[in-house]
Amino acid sequence: MLTLFHHPLYASCRFVRLALGEYGEELQLIEEQPWMRRKEFLALNPAGTIPVLLAEGDNPLVGATVIAEYLDETRGAFQRQRRLMAEDSIARAEIRRLVDWYLVKTESDVTKHLVRERALKSLMGSAGGAPDSGAIRAARANVRQHLKYTSWLAATRDWLAGPRLSYADLAAAATLSILDYLGEINWSEYEAARDWYSRMKSRPSFRPLLNDRVRGLPPASHYTDLDF
Amino acid sequence: MLTLFHHPLYASCRFVRLALGEYGEELQLIEEQPWMRRKEFLALNPAGTIPVLLAEGDNPLVGATVIAEYLDETRGAFQRQRRLMAEDSIARAEIRRLVDWYLVKTESDVTKHLVRERALKSLMGSAGGAPDSGAIRAARANVRQHLKYTSWLAATRDWLAGPRLSYADLAAAATLSILDYLGEINWSEYEAARDWYSRMKSRPSFRPLLNDRVRGLPPASHYTDLDF
Repeated sequence: MLTLFHHPLYASCRFVRLALGEYGEELQLIEEQPWMRRKEFLALNPAGTIPVLLAEGDNPLVGATVIAEYLDETRGAFQRQRRLMAEDSIARAEIRRLVDWYLVKTESDVTKHLVRERALKSLMGSAGGAPDSGAIRAARANVRQHLKYTSWLAATRDWLAGPRLSYADLAAAATLSILDYLGEINWSEYEAARDWYSRMKSRPSFRPLLNDRVRGLPPASHYTDLDF
Repeated sequence: MLTLFHHPLYASCRFVRLALGEYGEELQLIEEQPWMRRKEFLALNPAGTIPVLLAEGDNPLVGATVIAEYLDETRGAFQRQRRLMAEDSIARAEIRRLVDWYLVKTESDVTKHLVRERALKSLMGSAGGAPDSGAIRAARANVRQHLKYTSWLAATRDWLAGPRLSYADLAAAATLSILDYLGEINWSEYEAARDWYSRMKSRPSFRPLLNDRVRGLPPASHYTDLDF
């Protein structure tokens, strides 16, 4: 069985869990608090970041896109219609662009600030310091742009990167699921994004994410509803 | 001919130029100042980031790793010994980990701060504001860790990711070449890294980088020396 070092509030970790779920892989989860810089974990990944997947032979694979490419080479390539990447190189580039959009750009504009200020600082205790309301305000102002872009993609394509479910949908859903846990999305403003997210939420691969709970921070009331 | 939107002080752009150079591709360069958020450029890449490569059919490919994967699929796969990626999936993951190390981690710990404070702010004029000496100090404190890691990799492997030249070497050399332009590396402390960098610097693909000049900021005196 594969082992994933993860944290439930990191979009890149949720992305990897969704990918492994779609490919039907059983997964052992180890919750890592990367801010603790645990010695044994740094030996696996000197960068100290998550996710890290222990692949065949316990080789540590570091980072969401590194893991996604590995899974495409070792699983996806043999999956035909269920492959989470396209076959064509230009279509593959579009999928990768959108994975980066959500896991890098949305992360740096929105997700990491809201997660840090609203959740991680309290998990870190006194070392975390007080929430920065200015950072929360700035991130909330950016949420709209990312939801509008997601709605535009969902309204113009069957799935976010094209005609088939792909890593792009998984990266977007992983990111939005965290913002939704925090109650930061007013879905009524983004109809096409909501319809797409509702399809994502109904997938079996999504169920473990809906069961995630963070100590002292219950999810928004509609978080688990398939009809929201 | 392929067209690259780039800036000479962005490591991820230099990385792409090195990769195309290694594959013998002719390249048209367009210098983009991403902080200007030029409308025509945002139409190509709504994220507003560089590099962007116009590939076959003028399809815009966004971001260094997206471009690198595309080049591997469309060029590298047919190159045998000159391929910049490994064949084996675990070895490919190690190359990708190191590309991320330099283009994401070194970038965020070191490169982007020194480039912004020491070069971009003056290129931006009054909109840039004054250099932040605290950010410069913090970045300089981090340089050592990244050079030590590079020296360790160079001392224990033929090339940074293993027995063959790979994208990992190109990402590291692209990053260090910018720090070297700025005179931020005391090579005498990092012998193995220096020997490896000297090999990189002698490659024909590197020559265009050694000719880069930024207005008002001449390179360190040894920047172009092959024997430094």
